[in-house]
Amino acid sequence: MIYCPLTLLFYFSPFLLFYFFTFLLLKVMFDLGKIAIIGSGSWATAIAKIVVEHTHHIGWYFRRDDRIEEFRRRGHNPAYLTAVRFNLDEIVFSSDINWIAQEYDTLVFVTPSPYLKALLKKLKTKLNTKLVVTAIKGIVPDENLVCSEYFHEAYGVPYDNLAVIGGPSHAEEVAMERLTYLTVGCADLDKARAFTEVLASAYVKTKTSPDVLGIEYASILKNVYAIAAGICSGLKYGDNFQAVLMANAMQEMDRFLNTINPIRRSIIDSVYLGDQLVTGYSKFSRNHTFGTMIGKGYSVKSAQIEMEMIAEGYFGTKCMKEINRRLHVNMPILDAVYNILYERISPQIEIKLLTDSFR
Amino acid sequence: MIYCPLTLLFYFSPFLLFYFFTFLLLKVMFDLGKIAIIGSGSWATAIAKIVVEHTHHIGWYFRRDDRIEEFRRRGHNPAYLTAVRFNLDEIVFSSDINWIAQEYDTLVFVTPSPYLKALLKKLKTKLNTKLVVTAIKGIVPDENLVCSEYFHEAYGVPYDNLAVIGGPSHAEEVAMERLTYLTVGCADLDKARAFTEVLASAYVKTKTSPDVLGIEYASILKNVYAIAAGICSGLKYGDNFQAVLMANAMQEMDRFLNTINPIRRSIIDSVYLGDQLVTGYSKFSRNHTFGTMIGKGYSVKSAQIEMEMIAEGYFGTKCMKEINRRLHVNMPILDAVYNILYERISPQIEIKLLTDSFR
Repeated sequence: MIYCPLTLLFYFSPFLLFYFFTFLLLKVMFDLGKIAIIGSGSWATAIAKIVVEHTHHIGWYFRRDDRIEEFRRRGHNPAYLTAVRFNLDEIVFSSDINWIAQEYDTLVFVTPSPYLKALLKKLKTKLNTKLVVTAIKGIVPDENLVCSEYFHEAYGVPYDNLAVIGGPSHAEEVAMERLTYLTVGCADLDKARAFTEVLASAYVKTKTSPDVLGIEYASILKNVYAIAAGICSGLKYGDNFQAVLMANAMQEMDRFLNTINPIRRSIIDSVYLGDQLVTGYSKFSRNHTFGTMIGKGYSVKSAQIEMEMIAEGYFGTKCMKEINRRLHVNMPILDAVYNILYERISPQIEIKLLTDSFR
Repeated sequence: MIYCPLTLLFYFSPFLLFYFFTFLLLKVMFDLGKIAIIGSGSWATAIAKIVVEHTHHIGWYFRRDDRIEEFRRRGHNPAYLTAVRFNLDEIVFSSDINWIAQEYDTLVFVTPSPYLKALLKKLKTKLNTKLVVTAIKGIVPDENLVCSEYFHEAYGVPYDNLAVIGGPSHAEEVAMERLTYLTVGCADLDKARAFTEVLASAYVKTKTSPDVLGIEYASILKNVYAIAAGICSGLKYGDNFQAVLMANAMQEMDRFLNTINPIRRSIIDSVYLGDQLVTGYSKFSRNHTFGTMIGKGYSVKSAQIEMEMIAEGYFGTKCMKEINRRLHVNMPILDAVYNILYERISPQIEIKLLTDSFR
C-alpha cells in the first residue's frame, strides 16, 4: 500500500487544524503580562479578588505601608470588604508606585479620582507601553477630563492601550459573589477581550465595547442623576416622578454621549442603563443620601459635615457643567443640580422648573 | 383724511388675527363631548378625580348598586382611594352600561381586563361613533388581543377613535396629588391632544403619542418583567443583577414593540422606560410580590392562595407567550417566566439559564 502525500495530508488534517487554531488563538489573544491593582478601596479590593482568582499573582499598590502591614497580618483588606480573604502568597504589595509601574505590564487604576493626579506626579516610569485600565468613576479635578483622556493627554498613553471597566457593580455584591455583569471598553477590542478573560467567572459575566469615553462619562453622569433623585426624594416627589426622572436622565445621558463620542451605541445596554439604575435606585449610595439631605433643606456644607464625606457627584456636577459649556448639550437635570449645589438656588424652585422640561 | 381699504385692513389686523386663530383653535381641538368612566377600582377613581376637576361633570359606571349607594352616602369610593373626596353633584352614577354608553360620548374603560369581555357583552349600543379610551393594563383573555385591538375587531371602533392612557402612575400617588406624567396615545393626535386637556393639571403633566399598540403592549410586558424581578429577588440575586435584568427587559421590550408595531419610538421615553421602572422597582407591586414568593419556592397555586389574588402578570405571561409564538421575537425573560409559572420548571434552573443570555 502506497501513501500519496495528499492522503497523508488528509490523515493528519485534524492535527493540522488543531495547531492552526491554537496558533490563531495565541496570535489574537493579547498578552496582558503581569497585572497590578493600584488603589486600596472597596472597588479596588473587589477587582483584586476577581483578578487574582484567575492569575494567582497580582501586584497591589497601597499608599500607606501600615495598611499593607495590617493586610498581611489579617489576610484581608483592613478597611474595605473585610470579609474577602486573600492568599497572601499570590500578592506582592508595594507602596512604591514607580516599582509597581516598572514591574507590571497591565496597570489597573482604582484610586479615587481626586487623588489620581497627585499619585501620577510621583511617576518616573513611562506609561505609554503599558496597558492602562481605569476603573475610576470620576473626573480628574482641574482638568475636566475623564481618566482615559488624562492618561492620553498627560502621559501619552495611546488610546489603543487604554481600557475602562464599567457596569452596574456594587463592590459589596461582588465580595459576596453575587452575579455581576462587567463591560470592558477599549478601542482595541482584542485587549478588551483579553482583559475580560481575567474577570469572567461563575459570578462575573463580561462583555466588550469600543466605547471607552461613553462608559466613563456615563459613570460620572449617573452620580449627578443619583443626586437629583435624592433631591427629589427629599422634596417628597413620589415613585411616579422618580421613574420619569430616570427616563429623562437616560435621554439626557444619550444626548450627551452622542455629542462627546458620536458612535453607534444602545443606551439601554446594561453598562449605561443598568449602571444608572443601580445607582439611581440605591437608597444607600452616598450621592443619593447627599441629594436627599439637600432636598430636605440642608446646606451643601452642613450635608457634607453630617455625612463626613463628600459625595463624588458633587465634583462631577461641576466638571460636567464646565465640559458642557463648550458642547451646549440640552441637559436640564445637570443644570438644575448645578444650580442647587453651586448657585444656592432653592431645590424647590429648581426642581419645579425641571419638571416643566420633562416628557 | 381718507382711509383707503388697505389702511383699514391694517388697523384691524390684530382683531382679524385674533379671530382667525380662535377659529383655528376651535377647529383643531376635537370636542370630547360628555365623558364617562367605566370601572370602580383605584386607577378608575384616580382618573375620575383628574377628569372631573376639569369637566365638573362625569358619568361613572359601577357594576354594583350597593357600592354606588355607599359612595353617595360617604362622598368617596368606599373601596379604593378612600381619601379622595368627590363633589357628588358633579357625578351621575349608573350600573347600567347601556345607559352610560348611550348618554356619553367619550368612554374611559378602566375595568380589570379579565372582566372587560363580559361587560361588553351586555352592550346594545354601538361603540363605533364613540371615542373609546382605555386605561386597562392587560390583555383580553382568550382573545390574546390588547384592549384597543379588541374594541376594533369585536366592536368595529375605528383606530382613529381609540385612545390609551399610559405612563408611570401608581393611583395612590395621583390621589395624593404627587406629580405624575401621563401619555395619551391615539392614531388621531388631535383626539389625543383633546384628551390630554382634561388630564393636565398642577400635578398631572401630559404628552401625546401615536403609539397606541406600543403603549398597551409595554404595559403588559412590564408586569411580566416585574414578576421576573420578584423571582430573582426571591432567589437572592442582588442589585447589580436586578439592574442588568431591567436593562435586558428594556431591550426585550424594544425588540417586541418594533416587531408588533414598527414605528419610530424611543424606548427610553417615560411611557415605556418610566412605566417599567415604577413597576419593576416597586417592592409593593402585586406582580413583584408574587414573583418573590415563586422565587422563594412557593408553588404558583400556594402563592396565589397566600396573596388572596392573582397577579395580572400571571395571565399576561401566558398571553404574551402565545402572541409571540407567531412573531418569534427573541424574548428570553418572557420565556423564563412562562416556563417557571406554566411548565413548573425550577426558578433556579430557569434564571441560571437566563443569566447566560444577558448582555
